[in-house]
Amino acid sequence: MTSPSGDTALLAPGWAGSAAAAATGDHAYLRALLDAEAALTRAQAALGLAPAAAATAVTEAAGGAFDAVSLAGRARAGGNPVIPLVADLTKAVGEPYGPYVHRGATSQDILDTATMLVAARALDPVLADLGRTEQALARLAAEHRDTAMPGRTLTQHAVPTTFGLKAAGWRSLVLDARDRVKAVRESLPAQLGGAAGTLAAFGAYGASDPAALPEAYARELGLRAPDLPWHTLRTPIGDLAGCLAFTAGALGKVAVDVLTLSRTEIAEVAEGSGGGSSAMPHKSNPVRSTLIASAARRAPQLAATLYGSMAAEDERPAGAWHAEWEPLRDLLRLVGGAARDAAELAEGLRVRPEAMREHLDLTHGLIVSERLSAELAPVLGRARAKELLTRLAAAGRPLAEAPELTDVDLDPTHYTGSAGALTDRALERR
Amino acid sequence: MTSPSGDTALLAPGWAGSAAAAATGDHAYLRALLDAEAALTRAQAALGLAPAAAATAVTEAAGGAFDAVSLAGRARAGGNPVIPLVADLTKAVGEPYGPYVHRGATSQDILDTATMLVAARALDPVLADLGRTEQALARLAAEHRDTAMPGRTLTQHAVPTTFGLKAAGWRSLVLDARDRVKAVRESLPAQLGGAAGTLAAFGAYGASDPAALPEAYARELGLRAPDLPWHTLRTPIGDLAGCLAFTAGALGKVAVDVLTLSRTEIAEVAEGSGGGSSAMPHKSNPVRSTLIASAARRAPQLAATLYGSMAAEDERPAGAWHAEWEPLRDLLRLVGGAARDAAELAEGLRVRPEAMREHLDLTHGLIVSERLSAELAPVLGRARAKELLTRLAAAGRPLAEAPELTDVDLDPTHYTGSAGALTDRALERR
Amino acid sequence: MTSPSGDTALLAPGWAGSAAAAATGDHAYLRALLDAEAALTRAQAALGLAPAAAATAVTEAAGGAFDAVSLAGRARAGGNPVIPLVADLTKAVGEPYGPYVHRGATSQDILDTATMLVAARALDPVLADLGRTEQALARLAAEHRDTAMPGRTLTQHAVPTTFGLKAAGWRSLVLDARDRVKAVRESLPAQLGGAAGTLAAFGAYGASDPAALPEAYARELGLRAPDLPWHTLRTPIGDLAGCLAFTAGALGKVAVDVLTLSRTEIAEVAEGSGGGSSAMPHKSNPVRSTLIASAARRAPQLAATLYGSMAAEDERPAGAWHAEWEPLRDLLRLVGGAARDAAELAEGLRVRPEAMREHLDLTHGLIVSERLSAELAPVLGRARAKELLTRLAAAGRPLAEAPELTDVDLDPTHYTGSAGALTDRALERR
Amino acid sequence: MTSPSGDTALLAPGWAGSAAAAATGDHAYLRALLDAEAALTRAQAALGLAPAAAATAVTEAAGGAFDAVSLAGRARAGGNPVIPLVADLTKAVGEPYGPYVHRGATSQDILDTATMLVAARALDPVLADLGRTEQALARLAAEHRDTAMPGRTLTQHAVPTTFGLKAAGWRSLVLDARDRVKAVRESLPAQLGGAAGTLAAFGAYGASDPAALPEAYARELGLRAPDLPWHTLRTPIGDLAGCLAFTAGALGKVAVDVLTLSRTEIAEVAEGSGGGSSAMPHKSNPVRSTLIASAARRAPQLAATLYGSMAAEDERPAGAWHAEWEPLRDLLRLVGGAARDAAELAEGLRVRPEAMREHLDLTHGLIVSERLSAELAPVLGRARAKELLTRLAAAGRPLAEAPELTDVDLDPTHYTGSAGALTDRALERR
Repeated sequence: MTSPSGDTALLAPGWAGSAAAAATGDHAYLRALLDAEAALTRAQAALGLAPAAAATAVTEAAGGAFDAVSLAGRARAGGNPVIPLVADLTKAVGEPYGPYVHRGATSQDILDTATMLVAARALDPVLADLGRTEQALARLAAEHRDTAMPGRTLTQHAVPTTFGLKAAGWRSLVLDARDRVKAVRESLPAQLGGAAGTLAAFGAYGASDPAALPEAYARELGLRAPDLPWHTLRTPIGDLAGCLAFTAGALGKVAVDVLTLSRTEIAEVAEGSGGGSSAMPHKSNPVRSTLIASAARRAPQLAATLYGSMAAEDERPAGAWHAEWEPLRDLLRLVGGAARDAAELAEGLRVRPEAMREHLDLTHGLIVSERLSAELAPVLGRARAKELLTRLAAAGRPLAEAPELTDVDLDPTHYTGSAGALTDRALERR
Repeated sequence: MTSPSGDTALLAPGWAGSAAAAATGDHAYLRALLDAEAALTRAQAALGLAPAAAATAVTEAAGGAFDAVSLAGRARAGGNPVIPLVADLTKAVGEPYGPYVHRGATSQDILDTATMLVAARALDPVLADLGRTEQALARLAAEHRDTAMPGRTLTQHAVPTTFGLKAAGWRSLVLDARDRVKAVRESLPAQLGGAAGTLAAFGAYGASDPAALPEAYARELGLRAPDLPWHTLRTPIGDLAGCLAFTAGALGKVAVDVLTLSRTEIAEVAEGSGGGSSAMPHKSNPVRSTLIASAARRAPQLAATLYGSMAAEDERPAGAWHAEWEPLRDLLRLVGGAARDAAELAEGLRVRPEAMREHLDLTHGLIVSERLSAELAPVLGRARAKELLTRLAAAGRPLAEAPELTDVDLDPTHYTGSAGALTDRALERR
Repeated sequence: MTSPSGDTALLAPGWAGSAAAAATGDHAYLRALLDAEAALTRAQAALGLAPAAAATAVTEAAGGAFDAVSLAGRARAGGNPVIPLVADLTKAVGEPYGPYVHRGATSQDILDTATMLVAARALDPVLADLGRTEQALARLAAEHRDTAMPGRTLTQHAVPTTFGLKAAGWRSLVLDARDRVKAVRESLPAQLGGAAGTLAAFGAYGASDPAALPEAYARELGLRAPDLPWHTLRTPIGDLAGCLAFTAGALGKVAVDVLTLSRTEIAEVAEGSGGGSSAMPHKSNPVRSTLIASAARRAPQLAATLYGSMAAEDERPAGAWHAEWEPLRDLLRLVGGAARDAAELAEGLRVRPEAMREHLDLTHGLIVSERLSAELAPVLGRARAKELLTRLAAAGRPLAEAPELTDVDLDPTHYTGSAGALTDRALERR
Repeated sequence: MTSPSGDTALLAPGWAGSAAAAATGDHAYLRALLDAEAALTRAQAALGLAPAAAATAVTEAAGGAFDAVSLAGRARAGGNPVIPLVADLTKAVGEPYGPYVHRGATSQDILDTATMLVAARALDPVLADLGRTEQALARLAAEHRDTAMPGRTLTQHAVPTTFGLKAAGWRSLVLDARDRVKAVRESLPAQLGGAAGTLAAFGAYGASDPAALPEAYARELGLRAPDLPWHTLRTPIGDLAGCLAFTAGALGKVAVDVLTLSRTEIAEVAEGSGGGSSAMPHKSNPVRSTLIASAARRAPQLAATLYGSMAAEDERPAGAWHAEWEPLRDLLRLVGGAARDAAELAEGLRVRPEAMREHLDLTHGLIVSERLSAELAPVLGRARAKELLTRLAAAGRPLAEAPELTDVDLDPTHYTGSAGALTDRALERR
């Protein structure tokens, strides 16, 4: 059994075991905090503000083991885990280089920077999974370019469309998500400002040009150098919120479509390996879509909390900052898990063109009534054409049997409009 | 260092180490799932549907150790952790009683019931902490019944109030929260319906009156017997969302007031033991209020996700149910932590009547301008009275020096209205 | 064409023209503000604090016409519409009783009280429509007590259920909503506290027992007398948020079920009068459900904003209060519209038992595989029974043709468990 | 008195009378719907699919008056206002060109396109007001480049900063918002796809290359041509949600800072023209900040609803689409109003350097304790230095009187670090 206090995704089949889970767990966060502390000392050494040996000593000690449970408990006193971590790390470094740990920084410098590292490490697999997803969807769209199926609006058959156009649409959303995530991933900044964002302490410790330090620090970490300390200028958090909520919504669109098309009565698609049931051996549930849909239901409200935290007073707010930590991690996990599930879903999706074809006849020809309106209107006049079609619809008999329609092409697969051309064009996007 | 995959509240100083944390962790959830499975077999035994020895065997096996990490991983296949848990528990029970594990139930019966157990176990300490909080606030209100202080509206001094009335108001909110939490705590139902909520499988396994089973099951667990299976009738979840968001908001009100009154420039109250800073030895931060305020920022959006999940299609929804698990746990933790912090805050709060008194003079008498309006209007007419006061306000000189006001009582401590009487009345509530 | 600046629900087919719309429009709000002002003077007269003639004069003037557009514009200066309204009303009353307008009150007293009046007036039709809805659902449940249909979980057929149980479940949610709305409706309090909630100004104007005034005021308005001024103790707002979000969720459950069951491929139910389409004469869209579902998507986030506003600092907050006004009105409108649509939906719903019966055979008998598991397990052992069923499921042939199952009752309408009994019990609730 | 059914921003001092209000009202929306219909016929004429006279006739009729109240009422039948509008417009055009109205389009084509027009028209003044705001903030930052003030963290004085850096930080957020809004403004696409997004009807009406029509249509409207019909690919809605929530948060940061700094006890800044109070003549409330803060509390949840609607099933969803209309308009209004208030706030802000200077001494020198730590540590060792400062802090006496500190520069205005350099650099951004 796991340790009494540790959570290991028991309630989170959506992201359990994912790369995002590994990149965002307490262990990974602690690692990022230690990376941030070590980079700070190295950056100071690089600018001549600390001995090279201090940088080596801190980096080495930061590679060691620290007790996350103890840190979490001691974080209550000051309200964040950096304060006890600095104490433990300073002790681990020992004399004479302990005093170089965290020198000139504030807790938020380290926690914000660690958050950016965690975000970067969690977004990389998201981008990879979005890539897998869009490629699988491109294959589906190309393969089913001309597979006609019912277009559905407000739950009812409307006019025909193609599965190719549907898959191409899904892909375009995934590409939109990818573009937004990628832009944010590349913009993630390090944080360094000291107690109130003026870099004053670095001057007090001897830096002639403290403003050069954030750049050196960012370089050590592979992050972007910030224009200003952003302790209460939360652009990076708002941007993460936006691209993650967008991605959850984009993948959610795919999921709700697959859920609909997988229904027992529709069964036009099926997940590659549906989930079973303990009691009902026949069931094959669309589990990947279910978990993605679940993430899409949660992400917007998590993003809302992050957007709400942008209104952060003073040089460090009393609550708005603290309210970001868990929701941002939750978002990274949810989207990370959803991207993994989307890739599995897209790569394994089974399409049943014959079911689609069959359903096109469910309304006995009415699915092309729009076309009939268009073709009959010039002949009969708009009003009489509509009247005729309404009467035929109410009769509930196949339109093909109506004597008025003997010369009209009622084949629904001939009424897919520009679906093919639109699919082709959409697939040109890379 | 903690295990790579376990979260131990590193990012959650608000609820780290709290009773709510202990009651809601993966370990506790796993325990509740096992409690639910064992109770199911015992309830069947109680109604003669299973041998007593089966109940004993399952209960005993359910007391053993199960691997949460493995369960979390295997939960991905079917989308919830009950499916693999049933497999593990059945194996642990072995022959001949293994087949009595989970008999007739669906995963959701067990997961929902476990959630209610977890909620009950998390709400009990919440109620205790709300009790501690209201008692401490009652003491503060009584002690400071007549301690005058500036009433503030839209950040500006308005008219005097008392700290007693403020504390009595805080307490009334805490009592409102307590009443709402208590009502929901006592209404938490067990869940039992089988695959689609008809209890059919229990009949197939031989029950002559399957509808009696939920009652027996609830009795085993100390939960309320449900009127109907509530797989997609999510009243208990909506009610939990509501009372928890309410409590977070109620405690949040206390927190934002303490944060304001603790500001360096105001300093009318101070937390008993403020939090320190690594770099600034003089700082004493209002950490308890900060963490409560942080919870109050997050709770509403978590509740929104739960309310949103009430629109759950079919007999088990594909996503809405799954979207409840983590947010409900998060809410229980946040409110559990906030209630603990509120109790510590209220019990330790230091009040500085002298600062309050001093601030009453900051506006040089204008804080009683409302009284002056009332008293001068009958004499001078409303318009001239207002004009006079506006002129005096603009002059920026003490009102006491104005010759027009020599006969008026300008003492702000004499203008607290019914604050005392209101406080007394509010304190009568139990 | 409507006036350039007025909104008349063009984007809100869900609540356009509803009783809730009439009760919450700017006109109705203005009326409630004037009612609150008039009641205040009357209450003072009742306690001998103002001449009876003043009460008459203010009440009469408050019945007149005021310019909402002008008030909205002038509200910008002080941040709320009461300030200019007091000016206009005072002018309308004229001498000698003008000075009795708003005497001793603060803007928030009037706006909060008006909000409670508006809420009361909007909730009454909600309760009526919830009553219509539950009665129609009771009829449906009774009529279809034994109408078997597929139970669906994660979009797939699971085991049979009945439409009676489904309708009874919908009704139980509607009754839960009704109970919660009713309790809140009856608890709505008047607001009266003066500038900082101490009632001090009323004393300055001569009241010997200012604390008696809120009671007299509430009596004039048919609202509950408040225990304390609740300018920043937002229990009534939190309670409204909760019961409205709950109701939206409860009705949302009905809507998503009807949307699913109305799908062209399922068509087990249909709205009484489906909505048409300009281009496709055959379409009959489930518009009532669509609009209810739309409300259920919005309500939780509006409630979140209201819960978030409970953390209101000081004696009047700078933003939290202002953030309540529109979202609360939006919630009242959305829920009011959804309740109307739910009543129309329930009263008009057409049920197609023959489609339900037909769908029970879609899985060729697998819909009763749970029953087979239960019945075969004692004979073949659990493992072999499961293996057999899995093999038969994979074969895709009707179970009735399997030689192993010749003696088993495969009729799905015989496997509805306790659905009838549960329906009966649920219908006993009033 | 206003018409009984029209809303004119009575509850919305934040956006009443703003350019955004004018651009988003029902009147403006109706205008945009008519613009979209007229452009559709013109685009068809441009491609030879309709007579030029039809384009002229429709455009002319669309310029006329339509009854929004009637449309809102009739929208209930089909669930959107376009259906009755098409009927009215067709009638207004009359014979022979009536049949060219809306030809080949679906309601969503028109409503989505109108929404983009409304968004464009509402965002233009937002961009202008963000421009005014950043310019005013640039002036403030330059003017107060070296005005020292207390930096505050968790409500307590931390170390000095400058008002210049604070204003430069505000401006950088405003510029970030501007950049995001501008990018979205320029990307807003027209919508054209027909019933299920295949453009099929346009072919039925004779178009040889229907895919050319959306481009012609977008050109008529000054919108971007869409890559694909986006009926259920809601990238434009998600992008609007993101940039608007971001902007509300960015302006919210400015507002909460001004609210804090305006407090009676702090009074380091004041709004140019504070709002008055009916009862308290001395009050000067920070109303602009209050209204901005109020918008910042609401915007995130409105954005959440929009992000949630991205998971839109089928070719037109039953609820998700409808749930976008009002929240998006609300967001445009809130942000439009907040941008106007921010411009007024920034242009009118009064800064009180003398109050800032005075407050730097409130902690009797402890505000530079970080500097002392840095300077004493090398001399006394880190531990003894901290001990000394903690002892002095507890003593509550001015540090300047401590004999140990006679040689140290305790002037807080000398400890603003790189604030000036950071301000200069930030102001280089355009």
